[in-house]
Parts: sequence; structure tokens; C-alpha cells
Amino acid sequence: MATFMDVHEGFVGVTAEDFKAAHEADLRIEAEEGVHFEKAWLDPVSGKAFCISTGPDKEAVMRVHERAGHPTAEVYEVPIEV
Amino acid sequence: MATFMDVHEGFVGVTAEDFKAAHEADLRIEAEEGVHFEKAWLDPVSGKAFCISTGPDKEAVMRVHERAGHPTAEVYEVPIEV
Repeated sequence: MATFMDVHEGFVGVTAEDFKAAHEADLRIEAEEGVHFEKAWLDPVSGKAFCISTGPDKEAVMRVHERAGHPTAEVYEVPIEV
Repeated sequence: MATFMDVHEGFVGVTAEDFKAAHEADLRIEAEEGVHFEKAWLDPVSGKAFCISTGPDKEAVMRVHERAGHPTAEVYEVPIEV
């Protein structure tokens, strides 16, 4: 199991409620890919969002986001954390 | 007090030990700027690092990183988290 940080763009003006709904869409299907999204942060001004997750590989993380309707190709495996 | 995610590039091949030392350099001076770095993640393959912090503003976060020797201009205020 590895840890991943992924980055989304284009979430400009997204509300806390909508962001929560997007995160919950991930949570509903993540188990099917062996992924768990631990936390996500949003800057609604720049539209950048960041998610930290655990899972088997980068592709599994991407599949969950894609199936939930908010795909991103920017996923980093982050084996080192402090 | 606000929450920030910042992104660094160029940490290719950095070890866990060196990353910890860089984080500790932030921790030693952060109080002078009213900042606290909670956690940081590193992908030593792409060289991307991510730090989550709290502080008064983006500029204070940037000053700590700059004084600690690893400046970045990529700092996002993330008022929404799930």
C-alpha cells in the first residue's frame, strides 16, 4: 500500500458543500479499487484541490477520481512524509 | 489563522533523512512568522514536495521556506477541507 498526493485544477468558486459532495463520490466507490481518500483541501480562488490517499498504485487513484467525475492525471506517489 | 498547501519542485532523489532535516529547518524558525508546518510529503522520483501549514498569510509561509533555504512561490490558501 502506498500514499499518493493528487492535484486537481479548475475548481474555481466551488463551495464547501460541493467539495464535500465530490469527496463523498470518491468515498462511495474507492473500496472497489482498494483506495482510501484520507483528506482533501481546496483553494476555491485558484481552483486547485489536493487529495491525500492510500492505495495499490497511481492508476487505481486515477480510476476512482475518473469514475467519480473529476479526473486528474497529476498523481504523485509520496513515500516520504514528515 | 488560515491553512495553506505549498508545493516545491526539484527535490529529486532527496532522502527521508534530508527531507526531515529540511522540515526541521522550517520548524526551528516558523514561530517567528506565526506559522506552523503540520505535515509534508515528498515524491523523490518527480521531486515534488507538498507542505500543509497554518499561518497568518501566504507571505509568512513563503518567508519561512525562503529563510530555511527552500523557497517556493507556489502557496495556496485552502480554506475548505474534507
